[in-house]
Amino acid sequence: MPQRLHISEPDFEQRFRALLAAKREASVDVEATVREIVSDVRQRGDAALIELTARFDHLELTPETLRVPEAEIEAALEATPPKTRAALDLAHRRIESHHIRQMPKDDRYMDAIGAELGSRWTAVESVGLYVPGGAASYPSSVLMNAVPAKVAGVERIAMVVPAMRGALNPLVLAAARIAGVSEIYRVGGAQAVAALAYGTESIAPVAKIVGPGNAYVASAKRQVFGTVGIDMIAGPSEVLVIADADNDPDWLAADLLAQAEHDRAAQSILLTDSEDLAARVEAAVERQLQTLSRSETASASWAEFGAVIVVSDLLRDAPPLADRIAAEHLEIATDDPDALFARIRNAGAVFLGRHTPEVIGDYVGGSNHVLPTARSARFSSGLSVLDFVKRTSILKLSAEALRELGPSAIELARVEGLDAHGRSVAIRLNL
Amino acid sequence: MPQRLHISEPDFEQRFRALLAAKREASVDVEATVREIVSDVRQRGDAALIELTARFDHLELTPETLRVPEAEIEAALEATPPKTRAALDLAHRRIESHHIRQMPKDDRYMDAIGAELGSRWTAVESVGLYVPGGAASYPSSVLMNAVPAKVAGVERIAMVVPAMRGALNPLVLAAARIAGVSEIYRVGGAQAVAALAYGTESIAPVAKIVGPGNAYVASAKRQVFGTVGIDMIAGPSEVLVIADADNDPDWLAADLLAQAEHDRAAQSILLTDSEDLAARVEAAVERQLQTLSRSETASASWAEFGAVIVVSDLLRDAPPLADRIAAEHLEIATDDPDALFARIRNAGAVFLGRHTPEVIGDYVGGSNHVLPTARSARFSSGLSVLDFVKRTSILKLSAEALRELGPSAIELARVEGLDAHGRSVAIRLNL
Repeated sequence: MPQRLHISEPDFEQRFRALLAAKREASVDVEATVREIVSDVRQRGDAALIELTARFDHLELTPETLRVPEAEIEAALEATPPKTRAALDLAHRRIESHHIRQMPKDDRYMDAIGAELGSRWTAVESVGLYVPGGAASYPSSVLMNAVPAKVAGVERIAMVVPAMRGALNPLVLAAARIAGVSEIYRVGGAQAVAALAYGTESIAPVAKIVGPGNAYVASAKRQVFGTVGIDMIAGPSEVLVIADADNDPDWLAADLLAQAEHDRAAQSILLTDSEDLAARVEAAVERQLQTLSRSETASASWAEFGAVIVVSDLLRDAPPLADRIAAEHLEIATDDPDALFARIRNAGAVFLGRHTPEVIGDYVGGSNHVLPTARSARFSSGLSVLDFVKRTSILKLSAEALRELGPSAIELARVEGLDAHGRSVAIRLNL
Repeated sequence: MPQRLHISEPDFEQRFRALLAAKREASVDVEATVREIVSDVRQRGDAALIELTARFDHLELTPETLRVPEAEIEAALEATPPKTRAALDLAHRRIESHHIRQMPKDDRYMDAIGAELGSRWTAVESVGLYVPGGAASYPSSVLMNAVPAKVAGVERIAMVVPAMRGALNPLVLAAARIAGVSEIYRVGGAQAVAALAYGTESIAPVAKIVGPGNAYVASAKRQVFGTVGIDMIAGPSEVLVIADADNDPDWLAADLLAQAEHDRAAQSILLTDSEDLAARVEAAVERQLQTLSRSETASASWAEFGAVIVVSDLLRDAPPLADRIAAEHLEIATDDPDALFARIRNAGAVFLGRHTPEVIGDYVGGSNHVLPTARSARFSSGLSVLDFVKRTSILKLSAEALRELGPSAIELARVEGLDAHGRSVAIRLNL
């Protein structure tokens, strides 16, 4: 059973703090191992990549078979059952339409003194997309990572996916084809990240690497950061469900379990003003756990990290707690969810109303399912087109505008002790 | 003398690669030391912060004197000479007006099937601003870091600045007051970063930390990342000046030296199609070095990392080289600088035309001077309002919209083996 916290109890603040501070992931120290792998691939290229793939993925490759041929990708798409294909196509269309709206606009203007200023956005030239292998090889994640890059105008998207003993999820290949991925390589782990960052004889280097992975992949991304850009390092998934008494406990239980089934370290929290609902949801969770294929995972997550928080007044008490939790996913199942949402600052994504289960956002809502975890919604955002573009700021002065601004720049350079800075302006003004 | 590269020479590609690969900063391994400092402040709060400040900054503080009193800040502003004050005010006004235009807009809309989607931007709740001490304690940097946060709507900006033996740059205090910084603490180093991240009895924790610092500060920022957000880790400054024959060599030499005087590891590159200009700029640099207060630094930077690249055709040859250099600062001193800029993708900031020395952007242009260094303009942008806001994505479905989208979500959950995901939708549709 998950823990139950009541806002009226004297130890509430202490227990709530402990809930926030709970460390859900054992940190595995793989840094030294990863450092060797990265350095090996950097120095020996394909040869190292092929050897490491043989060792870790039990797959013998050659420079010719590293890349998945077009025909194999096309065949995977062709073999996709029509119902699955239609669902992938719908998801793709909706993600694309939504992300197109995120494209930032260039700005260029002249101010009152005749100085031109501006911002110009351009796409990152090439992106590497990491896709995990095995059970966590999700076609939906391929769409969520590749579509924003494509919408941003990234010309080359190179995908890597480990093929343990040769096995690749054909739906991952199909999703990559639908999303417009340019190249797919059957390699994974830290060695694939290194190949994307530094390049090998067969894989050209990229400018930025995105996508989820295990501890080795995360550590490799951290190590190559600087040489290339990286996205956030995602932690285990979380949901905070804020619900009033007027909810079907079975619906909420299903939502809580949809997070819990991801990972033993996932976290599902129910926040309600109804003791009765709290008890009924807990009972519904126990009932539904009986018939879940991933019940062991879900049950461990719910027991260890799940929580039910009961407050007195939802509109007053929920927002400050929600802001401290800063959940990756926030469901608000009340009559007027917007009223609560307006008072909450920190959440990766919000799902408003009783008919918006978070799962829709995982697949076909159109918004991105790559979202800030572990309270990082306090300072960061989900994946978007902005992650695949960068801005150049623009300044263009006429001789007159320089005359207007120059003396102040010279004064500031002087007080900062930077002579050459001052001279660079003064010399143009004959000062 | 800096190296001279000619695009027509057979070893050009090799030498250009070596120029790009040159490691300009010795990496100092301070990680273990910083780990101890961070952990000490995290555990012992003020007591540790005060002890470490006594040890490293030779300054004895108490919990009462940690914070710079309002009166001291106000006095610093009052004591600022009118000319300096006017320059700071002009810079402040121009930075503010420019950054207001960067504020992203919320978006909320209903699509064809009746699903509501959206993005809502909110300010990061609190920000810590690191300001270096000593000679690199620049009032302009205070403005550049604090103003975008203020424009974004950040409610609390806590600044830390080391006061070696008690000394604080009064102009830094004045700039902080002008920019609207809420609190100033006279502490620095890794211990100040730890105090901002975890909080102490006297300093409330923040959600994000920005601002430049030495190797200890950079390492501390990396270590607290996750607990709080951080900005980019800035490397030594760079400029690439693209110039045709029709330039005053003295102007360009002054621009190259304005970068070089920052740091021995700074890099100034001239790219031109004129052998004659190249030679005259080199001579002008030597001449100007004679009368520069920071000539030792500038001369070391120019000799070791400076470069002059001569190409045959500016419009054809410069853009691909500029994209590979991906300079922090790019000056284009030609008749039609926009034509060249349109062909260049990667640059942190561009300065167009002969009357736009980069130095204007350091102080009073209005754009930000915190920009991506070390080729990271390939995948990242300068500091902006976007660094102080975060986005919550919004989804709100009617019962009808859920009926429309639900079956596809259920199908994708099925092929991904996530039962509870499927159930969370199916249970609402009575499927």
